[in-house]
Amino acid sequence: MRSSQHTAPTESRTVGVGVLGATGYSGIELVRLLAGHPQARLEVVGARQQAGLPLHEVWPTLADSTIVLESESLPAEDWARRGVEVLFTALPHGVFAARARDFAQAGIRVVDLSADFRLRDAREYERRYHLEHPAADLLGESVYGLTEWVAAETLAGANLVANPGCYATAILLAALPAVAADIAGDGQVIVNALSGVSGAGRAAVLGTHFVECGNSAAPYKVGEVHPHLGEITQMLHSHCAVTANGDPTVIFNPYLVPMARGIVANVAIPLASTLRMEDARAIYADRYARAPFVRLLEGEALPETRHVRGSNRCDLALRVVAEGKLLLVFAALDNLIKGAAGQAIQNWNVMQGWPQELGLPRDGWTVA
Amino acid sequence: MRSSQHTAPTESRTVGVGVLGATGYSGIELVRLLAGHPQARLEVVGARQQAGLPLHEVWPTLADSTIVLESESLPAEDWARRGVEVLFTALPHGVFAARARDFAQAGIRVVDLSADFRLRDAREYERRYHLEHPAADLLGESVYGLTEWVAAETLAGANLVANPGCYATAILLAALPAVAADIAGDGQVIVNALSGVSGAGRAAVLGTHFVECGNSAAPYKVGEVHPHLGEITQMLHSHCAVTANGDPTVIFNPYLVPMARGIVANVAIPLASTLRMEDARAIYADRYARAPFVRLLEGEALPETRHVRGSNRCDLALRVVAEGKLLLVFAALDNLIKGAAGQAIQNWNVMQGWPQELGLPRDGWTVA
Amino acid sequence: MRSSQHTAPTESRTVGVGVLGATGYSGIELVRLLAGHPQARLEVVGARQQAGLPLHEVWPTLADSTIVLESESLPAEDWARRGVEVLFTALPHGVFAARARDFAQAGIRVVDLSADFRLRDAREYERRYHLEHPAADLLGESVYGLTEWVAAETLAGANLVANPGCYATAILLAALPAVAADIAGDGQVIVNALSGVSGAGRAAVLGTHFVECGNSAAPYKVGEVHPHLGEITQMLHSHCAVTANGDPTVIFNPYLVPMARGIVANVAIPLASTLRMEDARAIYADRYARAPFVRLLEGEALPETRHVRGSNRCDLALRVVAEGKLLLVFAALDNLIKGAAGQAIQNWNVMQGWPQELGLPRDGWTVA
Amino acid sequence: MRSSQHTAPTESRTVGVGVLGATGYSGIELVRLLAGHPQARLEVVGARQQAGLPLHEVWPTLADSTIVLESESLPAEDWARRGVEVLFTALPHGVFAARARDFAQAGIRVVDLSADFRLRDAREYERRYHLEHPAADLLGESVYGLTEWVAAETLAGANLVANPGCYATAILLAALPAVAADIAGDGQVIVNALSGVSGAGRAAVLGTHFVECGNSAAPYKVGEVHPHLGEITQMLHSHCAVTANGDPTVIFNPYLVPMARGIVANVAIPLASTLRMEDARAIYADRYARAPFVRLLEGEALPETRHVRGSNRCDLALRVVAEGKLLLVFAALDNLIKGAAGQAIQNWNVMQGWPQELGLPRDGWTVA
Repeated sequence: MRSSQHTAPTESRTVGVGVLGATGYSGIELVRLLAGHPQARLEVVGARQQAGLPLHEVWPTLADSTIVLESESLPAEDWARRGVEVLFTALPHGVFAARARDFAQAGIRVVDLSADFRLRDAREYERRYHLEHPAADLLGESVYGLTEWVAAETLAGANLVANPGCYATAILLAALPAVAADIAGDGQVIVNALSGVSGAGRAAVLGTHFVECGNSAAPYKVGEVHPHLGEITQMLHSHCAVTANGDPTVIFNPYLVPMARGIVANVAIPLASTLRMEDARAIYADRYARAPFVRLLEGEALPETRHVRGSNRCDLALRVVAEGKLLLVFAALDNLIKGAAGQAIQNWNVMQGWPQELGLPRDGWTVA
Repeated sequence: MRSSQHTAPTESRTVGVGVLGATGYSGIELVRLLAGHPQARLEVVGARQQAGLPLHEVWPTLADSTIVLESESLPAEDWARRGVEVLFTALPHGVFAARARDFAQAGIRVVDLSADFRLRDAREYERRYHLEHPAADLLGESVYGLTEWVAAETLAGANLVANPGCYATAILLAALPAVAADIAGDGQVIVNALSGVSGAGRAAVLGTHFVECGNSAAPYKVGEVHPHLGEITQMLHSHCAVTANGDPTVIFNPYLVPMARGIVANVAIPLASTLRMEDARAIYADRYARAPFVRLLEGEALPETRHVRGSNRCDLALRVVAEGKLLLVFAALDNLIKGAAGQAIQNWNVMQGWPQELGLPRDGWTVA
Repeated sequence: MRSSQHTAPTESRTVGVGVLGATGYSGIELVRLLAGHPQARLEVVGARQQAGLPLHEVWPTLADSTIVLESESLPAEDWARRGVEVLFTALPHGVFAARARDFAQAGIRVVDLSADFRLRDAREYERRYHLEHPAADLLGESVYGLTEWVAAETLAGANLVANPGCYATAILLAALPAVAADIAGDGQVIVNALSGVSGAGRAAVLGTHFVECGNSAAPYKVGEVHPHLGEITQMLHSHCAVTANGDPTVIFNPYLVPMARGIVANVAIPLASTLRMEDARAIYADRYARAPFVRLLEGEALPETRHVRGSNRCDLALRVVAEGKLLLVFAALDNLIKGAAGQAIQNWNVMQGWPQELGLPRDGWTVA
Repeated sequence: MRSSQHTAPTESRTVGVGVLGATGYSGIELVRLLAGHPQARLEVVGARQQAGLPLHEVWPTLADSTIVLESESLPAEDWARRGVEVLFTALPHGVFAARARDFAQAGIRVVDLSADFRLRDAREYERRYHLEHPAADLLGESVYGLTEWVAAETLAGANLVANPGCYATAILLAALPAVAADIAGDGQVIVNALSGVSGAGRAAVLGTHFVECGNSAAPYKVGEVHPHLGEITQMLHSHCAVTANGDPTVIFNPYLVPMARGIVANVAIPLASTLRMEDARAIYADRYARAPFVRLLEGEALPETRHVRGSNRCDLALRVVAEGKLLLVFAALDNLIKGAAGQAIQNWNVMQGWPQELGLPRDGWTVA
């Protein structure tokens, strides 16, 4: 039950890391997790607000932190000069990309938690995020960091990793084994997902006011309009075996529900031919046999967000229904850990050649 | 914005009513709503527990109630003798049915909120609820009270009305117009729905402990096993126009989310041929043109549980996606009102020949 | 259990009313309650935002409302011209006061829910609210509308009623009987109170973000700095019988807790001489014998916010402790009803010479 | 920001530990924290329910745990035989005490989280808990483990440590410096405290049902009846300097509020003579200068439960009010960590001669 079962690598040199965007929930989760990472030496933390204040004043829960927040606009070379070798960024979409080239030139490897480098096609980015891409030329260099679905060598060679979106992580971990195994048939893949309020970000807007969202459930951006559909379909298509069926169309209905953190989703995949439960299970068990952060539940168990709260795990469960014609895959993860900061560190571990579990919790919190 | 826009019927005689099952959430909601109904004279309230106590001690929020709780086992003739002409029952499945014949013989009309008289077929009941039906001979006499989908004359003549389940109400109000209009095509109807915790009942079990469910979202009874699928498919099939498509198979994934009351659902219906949004909208607008408790939202608006909290409304919204091949219908209602006590009173209003809105709120609570 | 037990007054003429400030939680609660008031004719609703939109778009839960929001800056004479005889205002402190003279000149009686006219002394207002009072000359004309503690004739003659603060209402209803009965002794009156998040207003600020306040409890403005201490001490002092003890000093520790609505408070009052529980009880029972919205609990019962949710009641309970030397009074109310909109209407009922209960709920919501 | 800043002691031998009572919230928190403790070797976990199941099935969030739950009734000698040197017990009051002598005879040191060994006087225990004490002869051997207020040598020599109650820990850490410094005057010490629902235990009772407590705040056991008053007054009296004032009487008003974990309290202490804020601060800063888990906040900051969630800290803040005549001390802690499992491990660390911080988090969770 240890946070990191693997001992530190034999080369005991720590790596200097920085976090940009510590005002937000993903950013501060990066800070919290990196502070407990045995190989990380947290050198610089930048924030959009409250630069100049010690971190423990801005986030009083982090009592031990004596780091003083830097301004967001600190030049890339200053990050490098202060020992940052790897930068984790968690800024709003479109903000970091404009500076990405500077950090690359300063020799700093980047794991970017925004959507800026997830899509290969700048026009798709513009269509999904209604922003002109500020660094389209870098899109070809970035690696989409769904850790379980990218080769370790690719991450090891990457200087710019695009960390997947929180919904996209849950949905892709649920859907990819079936799609890659070429068992999906005609018809839409229908996804429903419930997210906690931290997924909506920390900006104070009416929709996240406790009184507005605290005792209610609300769908939003339903159907075909949620921007994560860009990276979801890009990944599904790239893993789709060649078939007569064509590419899957994905319908995605997200809901905001009154909990602090967590995503639980189900993906309904029409099957090309009748499938038995044990065959579905074998495909998934095989695919994730060596994935320490994917747990395939057995029997009647279903993923619940409380079971992954505080953990870097994604829990999965399967059901074959409609006389073998439809596969339901349920997934739960902590949107701030496996859906953001945890997966970023998991990617970084692989970039460094370390065990992917290093410094990351598999166990979650029992009560929260 | 008045609770009941219609004035009381010209015959000013009130009707003696009783409630059986006031310990539970639906039962007490019946008491609360009937207390404000202009034609109801609440004569007897029975409960499984705490008989002998005044209601305001058991439910301190009901400060004005001086009614003393009766034992659940009060004989039917005593209910009649004390002036009860209509009984609303909200007991666990299987409990009231054993006594239904007694109440019928005592001349008391019944609106039953349990599942006992919803299904026409006793074997289907036994399959869904794992109970032998204690009064299978009465199944043929009961009317399934989805008010918007039953003829007023049928309710007017009914002595036993089976009030629909909370999920079933939301799902059927969402799905029936499309099914009845014969626009549904091959493939599964896929339903996802989120329910507040009052939907799980008032029994103190670990799953409804605040710490277990209060900050988490959890799927349960997913796929084809939720008992409401019985009444859902029964109604869909009875309204399915004759087509080559056969009957729809329904997949239903319910989720428990941390809110007190409310259900929000979406129903994904494959379309037989390409449909335009305006045509879908016309079908629904036409079908519910004279339904005061169904509101069809326009534009970008989507149903949220907070918008129906405290109201007898069901809000609906439509989306046509997948290039016209899939219809998404979103629905929200208050599980204790339109999903239980409110619809029971709505049915009763029609049974009496009164306007269906009598004593029922269309407006909800602004903050809760 | 009816919302309004008293039938409408014999003069059946309705009164034209307006609400200014319908964007906020108190303002919309005024709209909701006035819509159900048998003598109110809601003519104009003004808001700081979203003028021009129908109310049901701004507050979708109010499905029946066809009123179109007016701009906040609509001149007083236009309110009068459109039939508004009585105006309820729920604007931020300092905003309405600047226009109060205009409404007085237009012949409109006002019940003001802000703090602007609660204090007799403009300097105290400036000290408590850090605002220069924009209409200090009107302070002498206003009546402090703690309904149970103001003579009906005074309200009947008032043209400007200052509705008490939510905390102040709970604390004063709890403390005044003891203070007025001259049983309080030396030493501080120590008040602790817990408020739901709607009490913090509807402005989207970080402190009311679901993730920040949704699973936590936090004291704020503790000791002697909460602005409601101004009206609390003003009222206590004005009801303090002449004694050697001097005036009570009040210490007030408010807490924000994660619920939508409700205040529960306790007031610890040192006693001048040893008091028995039955004597304390007699003082309170006697004082509130004819107060339909104050309920004195018996035995072991204690006020809980869920028992007053949706109601205009304030529940009270007493304990004499420390060998008869300390009186504890517990109070709970719904901050948006008895603590704001409900008490405003209760005041208005008395201003009109109607029963104070008219259109106001004593029963609350059973589940929310 | 590391969980345990101190490296493991030079003697690298781990200690075999056991947990009895892993069904409950404190018990499972012990398991979670001990699993991350560098010197603990978790050998046996016993539970009242679900013996025979692997822990990860009972608590799915603990994915890594392969320990199989033992029956609660496993004999003491079997615990010893399986390598348990130190036992942490978290059973309901009265249950473990009956077996305490057995564990002592088996040579197992015990940290008991129940109330059984907190009070020196068996009659006081019986008065507070309405139970006859099953092992009154052991009361003289136990050490009351409020870590910051017990000598390290005493803990080092103890074989039976009574871990303080959650409320008692917060209240005593807040009150003891003032009492011990002899600045408290006549009059009652008035305590108000808010607790999250995990403090009510994991038994499924109506009061902890989400719908009953999830959106409400409720006082309970107010005045002089909460059982923690036993240990609170015992400790205050034992640290009260000899004065003319006599012993303080403590009034304690606890509130249940809808959050998962956390306690925030304030203690109002009448002062013997006028005190300045800086003097109060000096007393507290001095007393806790070497207490790594007590943080004295500065300036306007006040303790909030979210700032200690997941941490073993207790945050304190001071206010001197009423012209120097009253001291307010605010305290917040995580009831399951510093108020239970964390303090138990802190005590154990001192029992072993290790740094008290070993394996314990000072930083908390940022979002939960």
